Amino acid sequence: MPVYAAPSDGLTVPVDLLRTWTARAIVALGTPADIADDVAEILVASDRRGIASHGTARLPNYAALVEAGVMDPRARPVRDGGRPALARFDARNGWGHHACRVATDHAIEAARSLGAATAVVHHSNHFGIAGWYALRVADAGMIGIALSNTSPLVAPTRARVPLIGTNPIAIAAPAGRFGAFCLDMATSTVPRGRIEVAARRGEALPVGWAIDENGRPATTPEAALRGSLHPLGGEEGTAGYKGYGLSLAVDLLTGVLAGAAFGPNILGLFSTAGESNLGQAVIVIDPAALEDPGRFETRLEGYLDQLIAAPTVPGAPGRVLIPGEPEAEAAARADVAGVVIDRVHAANLAALGGRLGVPFPA
Amino acid sequence: MPVYAAPSDGLTVPVDLLRTWTARAIVALGTPADIADDVAEILVASDRRGIASHGTARLPNYAALVEAGVMDPRARPVRDGGRPALARFDARNGWGHHACRVATDHAIEAARSLGAATAVVHHSNHFGIAGWYALRVADAGMIGIALSNTSPLVAPTRARVPLIGTNPIAIAAPAGRFGAFCLDMATSTVPRGRIEVAARRGEALPVGWAIDENGRPATTPEAALRGSLHPLGGEEGTAGYKGYGLSLAVDLLTGVLAGAAFGPNILGLFSTAGESNLGQAVIVIDPAALEDPGRFETRLEGYLDQLIAAPTVPGAPGRVLIPGEPEAEAAARADVAGVVIDRVHAANLAALGGRLGVPFPA
Repeated sequence: MPVYAAPSDGLTVPVDLLRTWTARAIVALGTPADIADDVAEILVASDRRGIASHGTARLPNYAALVEAGVMDPRARPVRDGGRPALARFDARNGWGHHACRVATDHAIEAARSLGAATAVVHHSNHFGIAGWYALRVADAGMIGIALSNTSPLVAPTRARVPLIGTNPIAIAAPAGRFGAFCLDMATSTVPRGRIEVAARRGEALPVGWAIDENGRPATTPEAALRGSLHPLGGEEGTAGYKGYGLSLAVDLLTGVLAGAAFGPNILGLFSTAGESNLGQAVIVIDPAALEDPGRFETRLEGYLDQLIAAPTVPGAPGRVLIPGEPEAEAAARADVAGVVIDRVHAANLAALGGRLGVPFPA
Repeated sequence: MPVYAAPSDGLTVPVDLLRTWTARAIVALGTPADIADDVAEILVASDRRGIASHGTARLPNYAALVEAGVMDPRARPVRDGGRPALARFDARNGWGHHACRVATDHAIEAARSLGAATAVVHHSNHFGIAGWYALRVADAGMIGIALSNTSPLVAPTRARVPLIGTNPIAIAAPAGRFGAFCLDMATSTVPRGRIEVAARRGEALPVGWAIDENGRPATTPEAALRGSLHPLGGEEGTAGYKGYGLSLAVDLLTGVLAGAAFGPNILGLFSTAGESNLGQAVIVIDPAALEDPGRFETRLEGYLDQLIAAPTVPGAPGRVLIPGEPEAEAAARADVAGVVIDRVHAANLAALGGRLGVPFPA
């Protein structure tokens, strides 16, 4: 996911304060305290990691789902199927963050004895950043893969209309002094939020990001927002069919496998027209099933050391990066100096806090 | 993988004849008959599916490895670690095709009882098309993911030199009247074979396929062949770091996890300088662990029906395709009319057959 530059005229909020307030606001929506803690942790993790699009900025959207009665803040997930190495959880239309945290922990425990395990979730809601769940697995010393389907914003290769989601793939593993390897990517070239940023900045778009409503390359953000995102790879000639295939593969492993909605049947992002019924999946593999714990991690660290030492292309803005490195650096900065949120984001949280009787502290 | 157009002046070989001859040639290299049958099946599957780059055209390369003494045609894989849902196989430097067929079948059987299972392979060799293993899982009614690391041909985003492989990802599942969904893709924008085709045809290259030896966009195939492939997504501005991350993720789940070679430590493609020691992985998930067999497949078929009915972009060469559809159509044609191989390919097989005492029949 893209790490956005902190806004220059933003508001700085200490991480603990933001997390505590977020949890209180979520409780005020009718959520049990332990569930609210999970949701607040994951939303603030997104803000800390510089992914401003997926964190507390979306709290008003979640509140709208609860207030419209299309999401149940009280619901607790239940395991409703599976075998030892494949569990299905019914999120019962509750917070996706909590349901997937529970599913992730279940898969971690199962992998500890079986070597690998998968958990899928249906009847779920938007779960924030996929990377959080993969990193939770990495924190347990294992390899984690987290997937979710999402609202249709992407046009399959050759299609003129959006039929599939930006369906993220996150893969994380412990990586020694690098902390963790954490790839967390939408299967579109860019997420819709990146187009919105380009619109605010008046930027032109390169070919490969999006098509307009007539199916031609979108050269302005406005045309792109009326059209569809390109899958990763862009046009057919630059292998956009691979991103299309990856998006479909994520949907197959989440919505189709778990028995949730999928593809064009998913409602628009944060639509209050009905239940979201998203599908998610977490795959966990434990390297300690194969050898002494730590040997995998040592090899991975050595590999990454080789990569960052590579000679760079002319004009490169810096050395080769490791997936997740910019996000981890943003989080480390935020933990010291606080999260910087933009004025609109702050005003939206203040308005929500006022309405819920939980005044925003900043 | 790209389906190449059949050469216009090629030689047509019936599938059964090609498979039988290939198995006999492999036996003549010192391979036990059952192992040779696996290898021939998988090489000819590539030819049938129109992936001319990964099939019997490579038989002379495999023979060179055997004849140089850096690959053992007699070796049988042994399970040398793991727990019930994660097995590791040591290919003992034998045929990668056979070792991964054995590992795939092991994972299928384990998934049948546990719901999901993974098998990884180390000390392996090139295994042909990843899609074959994923399709074997789909044929068993389950979802299969097959991965392999490969020789370093791709430059990580910002790097000027090739350090990582084109590391393929294949994902397949049963899909009703579509046969199977089968995404089988290199994590580079294009495979090296596609650049070689462009060189033979005198084509210019679009930005996003490759860089030259100085790290600048390669505009000719010759410059690209002296340089490095771009990861899927192309340059940094069009999200090439996602393809880079995916390539690394494949390596992490294969070479690093299985304890094989990885990244820049892998020898050049079909180098006879030493053992390949490639790593592979197969992940199997059984939808029948969650619900009645067939319901997953019916949903997937309905999803794909929605996609192929989409309105298309201006100038689209046809309707929206399903991953694996062009390859399946090529295979169906080949099964009736034979495989068409080009003259160089045929001459190479004839020369090999002459040397091994197994005359090429065509």
